[in-house]
Amino acid sequence: MKKIINQPEHVVDEMLKGLVFMHQDLVDRIDGFDVIIRKAEKTGKVGIISGGGSGHEPSHAGFVGKGMLSAAVCGAVFTSPTPDQILEAIKAADEGAGVFMVIKNYSGDIMNFEMAQELAEMEGIEVASVIVDDDIAVENSLYTQGRRGVAGTILVHKILGHAATTGKSLAEIKELADRLVPQIKTIGLALSGATVPEVGKPGFVLEEDEFEYGVGIHGEPGYKKEKLQPSAKLAEELVEKLAEGFDIQDGEHYGVLINGLGATPLMEQYVFANDVAQLLAKKGVVVDYKKIGNYMTSIDMAGLSLTLIKLEDPSWIDALQAPVEVVAW
Amino acid sequence: MKKIINQPEHVVDEMLKGLVFMHQDLVDRIDGFDVIIRKAEKTGKVGIISGGGSGHEPSHAGFVGKGMLSAAVCGAVFTSPTPDQILEAIKAADEGAGVFMVIKNYSGDIMNFEMAQELAEMEGIEVASVIVDDDIAVENSLYTQGRRGVAGTILVHKILGHAATTGKSLAEIKELADRLVPQIKTIGLALSGATVPEVGKPGFVLEEDEFEYGVGIHGEPGYKKEKLQPSAKLAEELVEKLAEGFDIQDGEHYGVLINGLGATPLMEQYVFANDVAQLLAKKGVVVDYKKIGNYMTSIDMAGLSLTLIKLEDPSWIDALQAPVEVVAW
Repeated sequence: MKKIINQPEHVVDEMLKGLVFMHQDLVDRIDGFDVIIRKAEKTGKVGIISGGGSGHEPSHAGFVGKGMLSAAVCGAVFTSPTPDQILEAIKAADEGAGVFMVIKNYSGDIMNFEMAQELAEMEGIEVASVIVDDDIAVENSLYTQGRRGVAGTILVHKILGHAATTGKSLAEIKELADRLVPQIKTIGLALSGATVPEVGKPGFVLEEDEFEYGVGIHGEPGYKKEKLQPSAKLAEELVEKLAEGFDIQDGEHYGVLINGLGATPLMEQYVFANDVAQLLAKKGVVVDYKKIGNYMTSIDMAGLSLTLIKLEDPSWIDALQAPVEVVAW
Repeated sequence: MKKIINQPEHVVDEMLKGLVFMHQDLVDRIDGFDVIIRKAEKTGKVGIISGGGSGHEPSHAGFVGKGMLSAAVCGAVFTSPTPDQILEAIKAADEGAGVFMVIKNYSGDIMNFEMAQELAEMEGIEVASVIVDDDIAVENSLYTQGRRGVAGTILVHKILGHAATTGKSLAEIKELADRLVPQIKTIGLALSGATVPEVGKPGFVLEEDEFEYGVGIHGEPGYKKEKLQPSAKLAEELVEKLAEGFDIQDGEHYGVLINGLGATPLMEQYVFANDVAQLLAKKGVVVDYKKIGNYMTSIDMAGLSLTLIKLEDPSWIDALQAPVEVVAW
């Protein structure tokens, strides 16, 4: 394992210390917990929190700040955070109007976030949540009933964060989240596996000329291994899957998120973006919003994912474009 | 070679098309040229341009926009752009007050930028320039007389871009650049080589447990190969080299840039940042500005670089912090 780290078991702690050092104008860490909170002034609005296992940086701590998340809980690498950690995040995020939790669809995450919700409610904090299950690659997976939650989650952070900023109530945010999540779909592909520091070797290995469609952000199996193909072919497969998933019609409005999984250069992401642009144009899709870069990574996995968000509600475009003060948007 | 591309010889063209598609609110491409220009309104101020070989994304096109570069010239991968391309960038950047060129110290770049300068001057455009040579790893290198220009270049873009925005003249920007560049020093390390698409294999290969200090952003040899060590040891070596380079004294003010070379996860960059923070604190360095992420990459190279900027002029902090409208700052 070739990594710039110290002891593998200290990776999350040291990473969070580094994060707070580099961004101390924006974020802080709750003493004794792996929870990153924003420094923005409290305004009595709904707090939005998210989190999960570490290894997906900049998710989720990179989205903590004014206009997005109030707090992020950072579990061990690829491991759900414990309820006591999540409870601290809820308490820190509560400004009197309740706290909304954005949970990616992994069984451990759901169990622990819901347990934390119960504990918070016993302390008198109102809590609601949504489960993000945007990955259409496979139905059910290693750690998931139903579909996995992946890169589309950052669009949920952004749109709900904006709603909270504009003073929406917890019930209104819940209603928005329930409308929003079904309109976000993602599918990815991997050229290589990720190496968890404490494991020391890749979670899976692909042949030198092989890649896999539909791999999860913890290396969960995808749906098809093939010999490597040109970007245009990869884009075609992913766009077609998404087009089926949405039943895309000529003239519909979408946003596009191209997400690098950690070790994929921007050069490749932009080449892929060019292929996606042409395929969407052929389908008559109107692209009103675009985002590209490493947002929901899988440590050092090479590969990328493509997310579409159907912009059923035109106000979502404004929400996506609204300025925020966070590390990584 | 495992890359998400189509034909290797089309990588730069398709990457630029993807870039313009994803960011068409901010940038455009000059028809028939590999030059990215900003869409911001022309205001009659000095234009700042930069560029060089591609493969360092988001450098330099990611810094084109309001408050930073007027244009970026994108050569073939790891290859200097030709004078005719640079001339187009100069012409596009000229708003009547002249154009300032930020050139990384590579012999081919200097030759071609200076040739373009002559051509532009024949067309009546006033041009000045600075050569950035921030890499203190080695004296002279494969493509360089003196020291190489690397990640510190983006700090030059930012501070000069701010100066141009505030209406400084070409002569004032030249004077600022000449004061600024000697105050920026960088040193890096690589865990793996980069693969140029048209070459198809890594420029150099390291053993499974080996890394190299001081490698250049085109894979130029560094100064020492060793068995992989903990992040804290790597940070110590780089900080010590920079401390010597600056002759750092207790209480001095610096900015820190930690730059991923392309395939290095943020997880590792933050762990390294935490080590750097402690070492600088021990030296009594006051860190007034911090930046971390992939800014001056070497395609898919694993590794990172550490840049310090001595903040001799406190106004440089404001310049670094001033808001900009670009893709990648």
